[in-house]
Amino acid sequence: MKKIGVAILGLGVVGGGTYKLLTEKADFYRKTQGLDLVVESVLESDPQRTAALGIPSDKIACNIAEAVLNPDVNVVVECIGGTDPAKEYVLAALHAGKTVVTSNKELIAKEFFALEHAAKSHNAGLYFEASCVGGVPVIRALTDGVQSNTITSVKGIINGTTNYILTKMTETGATYEEALEDARKLGIAEADPTADVEGYDAAYKLSILSSLAFHAKVPYTKIFREGITGISAEDIADGNALGYRLKLLAIAKRTDAGIEARVHPAFVRKDHPLASVEGSYNAVFLTGDCVGDLMLYGRGAGELPTASAVVSDIIFAATRGEHRYSHLKSGAHAEKESFSDDFESAFYLRLTVNDEPGVLAKISSVLGKYGVSVEELIQRAERDRPGKATLVLITHKTHELSVKKAVKKLSDSDHASVDSVLRVEL
Amino acid sequence: MKKIGVAILGLGVVGGGTYKLLTEKADFYRKTQGLDLVVESVLESDPQRTAALGIPSDKIACNIAEAVLNPDVNVVVECIGGTDPAKEYVLAALHAGKTVVTSNKELIAKEFFALEHAAKSHNAGLYFEASCVGGVPVIRALTDGVQSNTITSVKGIINGTTNYILTKMTETGATYEEALEDARKLGIAEADPTADVEGYDAAYKLSILSSLAFHAKVPYTKIFREGITGISAEDIADGNALGYRLKLLAIAKRTDAGIEARVHPAFVRKDHPLASVEGSYNAVFLTGDCVGDLMLYGRGAGELPTASAVVSDIIFAATRGEHRYSHLKSGAHAEKESFSDDFESAFYLRLTVNDEPGVLAKISSVLGKYGVSVEELIQRAERDRPGKATLVLITHKTHELSVKKAVKKLSDSDHASVDSVLRVEL
Repeated sequence: MKKIGVAILGLGVVGGGTYKLLTEKADFYRKTQGLDLVVESVLESDPQRTAALGIPSDKIACNIAEAVLNPDVNVVVECIGGTDPAKEYVLAALHAGKTVVTSNKELIAKEFFALEHAAKSHNAGLYFEASCVGGVPVIRALTDGVQSNTITSVKGIINGTTNYILTKMTETGATYEEALEDARKLGIAEADPTADVEGYDAAYKLSILSSLAFHAKVPYTKIFREGITGISAEDIADGNALGYRLKLLAIAKRTDAGIEARVHPAFVRKDHPLASVEGSYNAVFLTGDCVGDLMLYGRGAGELPTASAVVSDIIFAATRGEHRYSHLKSGAHAEKESFSDDFESAFYLRLTVNDEPGVLAKISSVLGKYGVSVEELIQRAERDRPGKATLVLITHKTHELSVKKAVKKLSDSDHASVDSVLRVEL
Repeated sequence: MKKIGVAILGLGVVGGGTYKLLTEKADFYRKTQGLDLVVESVLESDPQRTAALGIPSDKIACNIAEAVLNPDVNVVVECIGGTDPAKEYVLAALHAGKTVVTSNKELIAKEFFALEHAAKSHNAGLYFEASCVGGVPVIRALTDGVQSNTITSVKGIINGTTNYILTKMTETGATYEEALEDARKLGIAEADPTADVEGYDAAYKLSILSSLAFHAKVPYTKIFREGITGISAEDIADGNALGYRLKLLAIAKRTDAGIEARVHPAFVRKDHPLASVEGSYNAVFLTGDCVGDLMLYGRGAGELPTASAVVSDIIFAATRGEHRYSHLKSGAHAEKESFSDDFESAFYLRLTVNDEPGVLAKISSVLGKYGVSVEELIQRAERDRPGKATLVLITHKTHELSVKKAVKKLSDSDHASVDSVLRVEL
């Protein structure tokens, strides 16, 4: 039986989960895969973590060299996170000709070319299914399931924390702050939730997924990013009343104008498959020229779902023979990719207007001047603000710039104040 | 650049689509995969088909030997369907050491062991992603995406024709016959729709998917099968009123009592991800011990979606090196798999009762005697049947046998006639 020795760097949630799967399910992998997967070495400075997992002391490496140069180690699993020292450690493993499996989205999003170059030079594998959307095999789908397609669009709910918060706000009418507090209590949001709620986490993942989908490097720095901290309970309720659900969407499209990539809150229609992705679930919705629409849905984070992806990569590397490298262009040989920031979208606008005859005509007229036409509209009187009314409207698809101009014109006028502007993804 | 010569057997919908992709997207595959995919030979007796695709006459083989023995051919794509002559042709290809890619679910469901044995003996590849759920890469997900998991359950909407019919009935209130006629007009149902509407097609696919999921051969003959021809518009409307959608579900579970596998209509709650799979879309919902719930959703049939899976397999075989064979036990070495047919399920019952005091108590009492308890109930008077009322109820989860006994008892009584019994999958 083929034996694969594994070193695990970092025994946090994902590394610990990986250790558990490899030890507890070893017999299952022998039976079903014909593979003897053995943890030969771990690198973890916190003795409480190694003790909690019951790891024998002779398997605990003192330094990175000991872990990756161990001749019994074939695959190095990196679950440290961040780029320092993860990059150095991963390069050390690749330079030693060891295949690397990582769950580190920031590392892959920022350092892919350097890592792939090292992997290729040393004929080592580089696998990172666990870096995106937990246990959902979306990278395998892109590289080995629908690689026959020209992918034109990737849309996803790829951050569980924000999806939990928005779902909570939708279901209970909670404010952003209340929902965030709830997520913190459940361990779904971190003490400093910036990376999640401001969309950085989603942007890293979108960079990875769209680069694979489009066979073109989409740097995370090129991704437009807007978080969910400004979302009000009122926006969610009003959108709901019009038949929409608010999600933090990661969207990448290949258009004639170039690649557009963005992470921002957006309404989707209630009958869209992404609308029913609730709580901490994630989903990625792909469109290809042959396969049409395809969605993968599942747990985007967590100990065992993410470890599931790590172990899947270890088995894949061990059983599918040759390692492959991307055909992404980089450096001097890069094809000039153009990126577009003139997004087209429908919009949700919430305005406070003077409750007087003709005001609706005035608003429509301003919007019309900028080519923005209204698809749906709700007007309601405001009991606590006499003489004022609220207008909630959804526009037809239009250029973002047109909406911005119209909003400025409305804000400058005496007729209305613009309380909220959100995108609607059709 | 690595060149892969392809022979296509059968130029119907899927074979023709495969030819189109391989020729029209050849440059894309060179650029993105580093592969030169060239159709070297086709076997098709209908000259109209070859002419319609503009296939040069020197590429049209006269017989199977000419196609598969062609030294320029590395991969043989079988899109003939059925087992005769497909089995013979596929064996000929495998015996010649050629990798086979097939879209033929019946062949794989019925002849998997013979084909895999031949593939293994000749170190040839055997790939069949296109046999299940069109372009949705569910086989790749099972074998290479969540292979780290012990899969406990596979549930799917894996037949587009029946899902179209049930969706139509749900949305328009049409009868089964009307919806079938509509599906026929759109080319979604065949002139003889038996294979689809009686669940044979879904049973073949479930046999393949559950065998892969459970690492155990699940013969299609062991799959309980019930079609949708008896479904009434009233059932669908009543289920709807209680918050359920009717689907033809394929379900396989590994329970302590053994493997249970079944294809039948079943209600699912409206908020279940499978409930929003509409029209000719398909989805497979997997549960694994690490990944939890995972769903793949997309086009389960059609020319280009299915050809997408075929070409994906060709690329996979060409780029992922070693061919792998399953660890399924067969023949003399088979572990004894036990199959369970004592399904547990919730049930939907529609009864006609005498509209008189105490009838509800009598019905509940009969159900209670067999351990069947009611979770939800609607009672309504029937204007066109004076003195009668309709009871629609959903039971708690219970043993199928208990429900059958209770239904018999009710049918034999003077209180009620049982008009409909359907399963509810929670």
